[in-house]
Amino acid sequence: MNKHKIAVVGYGNIGAYAVQAVKAAPDMQLMGIVRRSGGGDIDGIPVVDDIAKLGKVDTALLCTPTLNVEEAALKYLAMGISTVDSFDIHGKIPQLRESLDAAAKKNGVTAVLAAGWDPGSDSVIRALLEAMAPKGVTYTNFGPGMSMGHTVAVKGKDGVNGALSMTIPLGTGIHRRIVYVEAAPGADFAKITEDIKSDPYFVKDETHVFKADDVNALTDKGHGVSLTRKGVSGQTDNQLFEFSMKINNPALTSQIMVSCARAGLRQKPGAYTMIEIPAVDFLPGGRDSWIAKLV
Amino acid sequence: MNKHKIAVVGYGNIGAYAVQAVKAAPDMQLMGIVRRSGGGDIDGIPVVDDIAKLGKVDTALLCTPTLNVEEAALKYLAMGISTVDSFDIHGKIPQLRESLDAAAKKNGVTAVLAAGWDPGSDSVIRALLEAMAPKGVTYTNFGPGMSMGHTVAVKGKDGVNGALSMTIPLGTGIHRRIVYVEAAPGADFAKITEDIKSDPYFVKDETHVFKADDVNALTDKGHGVSLTRKGVSGQTDNQLFEFSMKINNPALTSQIMVSCARAGLRQKPGAYTMIEIPAVDFLPGGRDSWIAKLV
Repeated sequence: MNKHKIAVVGYGNIGAYAVQAVKAAPDMQLMGIVRRSGGGDIDGIPVVDDIAKLGKVDTALLCTPTLNVEEAALKYLAMGISTVDSFDIHGKIPQLRESLDAAAKKNGVTAVLAAGWDPGSDSVIRALLEAMAPKGVTYTNFGPGMSMGHTVAVKGKDGVNGALSMTIPLGTGIHRRIVYVEAAPGADFAKITEDIKSDPYFVKDETHVFKADDVNALTDKGHGVSLTRKGVSGQTDNQLFEFSMKINNPALTSQIMVSCARAGLRQKPGAYTMIEIPAVDFLPGGRDSWIAKLV
Repeated sequence: MNKHKIAVVGYGNIGAYAVQAVKAAPDMQLMGIVRRSGGGDIDGIPVVDDIAKLGKVDTALLCTPTLNVEEAALKYLAMGISTVDSFDIHGKIPQLRESLDAAAKKNGVTAVLAAGWDPGSDSVIRALLEAMAPKGVTYTNFGPGMSMGHTVAVKGKDGVNGALSMTIPLGTGIHRRIVYVEAAPGADFAKITEDIKSDPYFVKDETHVFKADDVNALTDKGHGVSLTRKGVSGQTDNQLFEFSMKINNPALTSQIMVSCARAGLRQKPGAYTMIEIPAVDFLPGGRDSWIAKLV
């Protein structure tokens, strides 16, 4: 079998789990890790500062911060390498898609964007539930779990040495924020609390701020979601649906990126969100065996 | 807007709900109902014994018994009409797909098969969960709700005037069957019970048979499913997923058929199960607004 040649770009939290997921995929070959400080290897996997040093690569998994995704994707697409990212700013996905679509088509490759669990697999569930009950309301309830975005926002405040922001689901899409702060010596904790509560990330939510001696001691990578819809199928009301999960966050994100790398190589040139890809294309091997097994 | 022209074939339980679902769809026009005893109308909708009498039809929704699906689909596909069915014998789906695929391609149309909730939307969920956690076990737990197949099996027994077989989920894909029987006057109830328990439909399951004076008085169309997976994302164990719903069974089945009729008209000629269709194609209108709303 001709395995898909994959490079992992970035070696933070997601990158480290992506390496594991590529290794576990039966149809993929991990060509190497790309990071600024290239050179040497990690557990025998070559680490380079330039993807060209890895030889032919089919797909680059962009395990970079969300704000760097577009620049990185355009760079690799221009080199004729397909990309997968887990860009997670919901409101900016259409414009990222447009930008990557043009570049992917120009270079005869594909980009799968927003390929995590939300946006990502949750988006597929939301689309499916719209098809099953076209009228109604879907609520996406996150957590309990660590919010990366909120944690980063707190870390940026004056007097904060370390932070952890937990998202607690209260139902109907409403969330409580529990924030643990390692304050710098002499910092004004009341001022920090006020800064957090007035931040746009927190201002609409019930937010509680606590002192912590060591936020690392409180941090686990578990997260969850409960996505509910109550709606109307045809003209019949009160159809009830729920999707929920309890997962290791970076492990799931990177696994979905790997499944999307496979799917991307099966699409025509262009950019795709997960709702634009048939579910069977995420899975290894031929369609027929999956149809027999899953349908 | 050019609306999709839809005919509902068969007017049993599913057919009646399909009429409602087509009427509720913003991009569809209900051309009529096709049934053996054609003539007249139902609430103003023409009823005919031959689809040709309805003029141009894009898609026929086959609301016929599962065992008649292939014959009906081949007939309409040969007329250049796309089809959607909710064929539900899991083991025979690959061969039905092959048969309909050839006919659809020959006539430049599409067939969406096994388009209900199981097989159907549950199959999409199962595929998505495989992509999210490739190693692990998925359990599909049905009910509580009426099983059509089991009820029909009981109705076929000697001495049975009426029947209702309820499916009760016990978890891990194990089900209890609660069967209510209206026995014919003078029938041997012990014999009926033995016949049911030794039937291939029941022989593997914990089955309880009760006498009932009037099974209609016990029957509602509610059903449910709880689909669980515990698996491994990359190399991380214990990823937990659950999809559950509580629904009116024929209302959901027919709604999914309507969404699949739309999706079928967007695919290249051929036959498709739901896992082979991008989720966004089930939804009315353009992709861009759904990407902005759902992703």
